[in-house]
Amino acid sequence: VWAHVAAGETLGDVGEFAFLDRVLPGLPQGLQVLVGPGDDAAVLDLLGTQVVVCTDVLVEGSHFRRDWSSAHDVGRKAVAVNVADVAAMGARPVAVLAGVAAPGDLAVDWLVDLARGLRDEAGAAGCSLVGGDTVAGPAVSVTVSALGVLDGPAVTRAGAQPGDVVALCGRLGYAAAGLAVLQRGFRSPRALVDAHRCPTPPYAAGPQAAAAGATAMIDVSDGLLADLGHVAAASSVAIRLVESAVTVEAPIEAMARGLGADPRAWVFGGGEDHALAACFRPGTDLPTGWTDIGEVAEGSGVSVDGWDELPVGLASSGGYQHFA
Amino acid sequence: VWAHVAAGETLGDVGEFAFLDRVLPGLPQGLQVLVGPGDDAAVLDLLGTQVVVCTDVLVEGSHFRRDWSSAHDVGRKAVAVNVADVAAMGARPVAVLAGVAAPGDLAVDWLVDLARGLRDEAGAAGCSLVGGDTVAGPAVSVTVSALGVLDGPAVTRAGAQPGDVVALCGRLGYAAAGLAVLQRGFRSPRALVDAHRCPTPPYAAGPQAAAAGATAMIDVSDGLLADLGHVAAASSVAIRLVESAVTVEAPIEAMARGLGADPRAWVFGGGEDHALAACFRPGTDLPTGWTDIGEVAEGSGVSVDGWDELPVGLASSGGYQHFA
Repeated sequence: VWAHVAAGETLGDVGEFAFLDRVLPGLPQGLQVLVGPGDDAAVLDLLGTQVVVCTDVLVEGSHFRRDWSSAHDVGRKAVAVNVADVAAMGARPVAVLAGVAAPGDLAVDWLVDLARGLRDEAGAAGCSLVGGDTVAGPAVSVTVSALGVLDGPAVTRAGAQPGDVVALCGRLGYAAAGLAVLQRGFRSPRALVDAHRCPTPPYAAGPQAAAAGATAMIDVSDGLLADLGHVAAASSVAIRLVESAVTVEAPIEAMARGLGADPRAWVFGGGEDHALAACFRPGTDLPTGWTDIGEVAEGSGVSVDGWDELPVGLASSGGYQHFA
Repeated sequence: VWAHVAAGETLGDVGEFAFLDRVLPGLPQGLQVLVGPGDDAAVLDLLGTQVVVCTDVLVEGSHFRRDWSSAHDVGRKAVAVNVADVAAMGARPVAVLAGVAAPGDLAVDWLVDLARGLRDEAGAAGCSLVGGDTVAGPAVSVTVSALGVLDGPAVTRAGAQPGDVVALCGRLGYAAAGLAVLQRGFRSPRALVDAHRCPTPPYAAGPQAAAAGATAMIDVSDGLLADLGHVAAASSVAIRLVESAVTVEAPIEAMARGLGADPRAWVFGGGEDHALAACFRPGTDLPTGWTDIGEVAEGSGVSVDGWDELPVGLASSGGYQHFA
């Protein structure tokens, strides 16, 4: 396991997100672990109940800025990104825990607003905020862990089969467009900026997809192409998207025109909207809210029909490295 | 809930550990939540299985120093303090998750050693390390969440009854003495210094106490008097300790003599050893490793027989505020 890391490398060299991803999947796991590290969440068999668990850290400066997002936004986002991972396994979210580090001179009002955000998004997802810890530290960080329960088998990234329909539920490109707006010093349009501040994952769509027999599912957090690349790799299949089936919604189209950007870079490459993407056996009646956007084939990688070259901006985004 | 916090206060004013403790217990909880915030861990009923969950954050500078503790120590400690909370509910630990923030220039070797520590202590506690997240941040922080399962009712802080025996399993005062040694620039004796670097909680003693009918239990993390004060308050009882029943072990006695300190301040007031304290109905055969140290009576607060005044050092420790 540890051999994947070369001597003398720093965290910056290997990429912050890569470290535990490299190390954890090689660890031995107990008999109760049905799905270990490497998927959206782990799945445990606890005396016959399948429990789904995951954790994500948000750090000020990397994941939010206090001048762009309210404490309430940060609390909601910290819950949303975790509960979306639980839903992406097909599980019903039940509970979240929060570990908060913050400077000693931070106003308690900010923390109260953070706690309200944690509570509100937990409530929106049908969860309880059951515990937490607050400590003094040099920057604000919020680590949420989320738990859910499965009524049937977990839907991992690894079950897609040639012939499956690829479907999407939720928004794409809003958070990336909102970030572009904020980076240029604007605070509107609200639909985009708010999407960066806090995603609105379609929590219920996860268990609904599982009940409809989804063969694979993923939370779209790194970008559609990047995340479907994870599904393609885990399932040893190719995924072929139909560009015209992936809607570029009006606020994104308009903002891209205003900024001279290619909206496809946000829609296909932008992360943080936490839509769900899933594969279904051909002929499945897709649950409400899901749209057919492509198909699974023999082979590897993700392709988009009609693209002879990558949209501007996508080549340098996180999506590109998985686009092949 | 939110009214407990006054306008204009900072996190430093209210005390870092107090914030979520004040806010969370007032939140509405779902039907699946059997024990909500405020105990060592929360308890959920997930399709008939009782699942115990908790989270704790360790931050560099507050909870560890990289010049005093190895990365392996920090990883072990982050798991130990959480799994001890799971055990203190009477549960068998099953899994842990870790969220790590670290500066981009931190050597990956340090993180590999941290991950080994997480894995090793999880293994020692019979758990799997099932997931995690690594992000770039200004200081090293490690947030672990732990899960366990209960075979019977959870043992909370609230069930102690007059007449119960108060019993202890595990070490007291070692971590506090070790910290005193490190603060004076020494690196030995190892038994004390290592106890600060990583506690050795008696994980199996938690489920054993539950099986023996423990009426209340707590993880001794803030100091024996402080934590038994939590039990006394939650159970609306008084706890009377017998000083001679609480052993001051030889390495602590010797170090106290060397430093001119009162060893009772470390043993009764020192936290971070993560012993377990529990109450049992009178006449219970205490499980192996548990020692009778006192009794439960009508009333409130914690007292130690024979103490007309507090030992030196205890008056200013965390233990004092609960000692009455």
